[in-house]
Amino acid sequence: MQDTFFTSKQAAEMTGCTLRQLQYWREKGVVVPTIRSTGTGRSVYYSRSEVMELAVMEYCLGVGLNFEVAAATVKQLKDEGLILIRDEKAPQRFMLWWDGKKGKLELVEFDSKKAIAYLDEGKPVIPMCLDVIYQQLVNKIQS
Amino acid sequence: MQDTFFTSKQAAEMTGCTLRQLQYWREKGVVVPTIRSTGTGRSVYYSRSEVMELAVMEYCLGVGLNFEVAAATVKQLKDEGLILIRDEKAPQRFMLWWDGKKGKLELVEFDSKKAIAYLDEGKPVIPMCLDVIYQQLVNKIQS
Repeated sequence: MQDTFFTSKQAAEMTGCTLRQLQYWREKGVVVPTIRSTGTGRSVYYSRSEVMELAVMEYCLGVGLNFEVAAATVKQLKDEGLILIRDEKAPQRFMLWWDGKKGKLELVEFDSKKAIAYLDEGKPVIPMCLDVIYQQLVNKIQS
Repeated sequence: MQDTFFTSKQAAEMTGCTLRQLQYWREKGVVVPTIRSTGTGRSVYYSRSEVMELAVMEYCLGVGLNFEVAAATVKQLKDEGLILIRDEKAPQRFMLWWDGKKGKLELVEFDSKKAIAYLDEGKPVIPMCLDVIYQQLVNKIQS
């Protein structure tokens, strides 16, 4: 993936999102591109990591999660600096699971044994394979 | 659980749903009570199985699923006559999993081996334990 920026149209095509979604997420502060011309709001450029954020949003919504959970997941990955895969040794597989005590979905590193235990207890487990999402993005850019 | 009917208020309290949600789901045809007085729309009574449908909606939304997936899940359970647990031998544990070929979540009987295989492939698995949801409902009615 080159160190470049992408227009809204390019970012939408790469991630399978619509331009309307991108606009809505900008308004809601979910994925806000760093480069924006003041005034018109027409010139919007997404960095590589921002495109990756869009792809994660699309993944979350695509598996049937609601907007709030999808946005919270992107935010947490972003806050923890995990959205861009720079280091092969960094954890790339996470999972969302239902935390009954907190009453919400929690994002943690993927752990097969834990995942199975959660399922046995009737808790949902949603894998978040950032490496897979990232690779799909790279493939689209190269094609 | 007695063979009785419940008002909107009772049904909302039992399931943790809001009256606004119940109204919205009636309008959308997701959970439509069989007994309704014509005209005013004020006298609405939910049967036991309809209250169970509400509880399943609440469960699906509570684990972060969007409205469409939650409604589709309730519809499928209803269509297949699985919403009310009458027979202990009937399957009570299902799971939603991501069907990449169909591009949507599928509802199938819970199978631990399959669930683990799906997770290993990076697919989300959301257990639907109807017996647990049903028991929680019974406990609330009795308390």
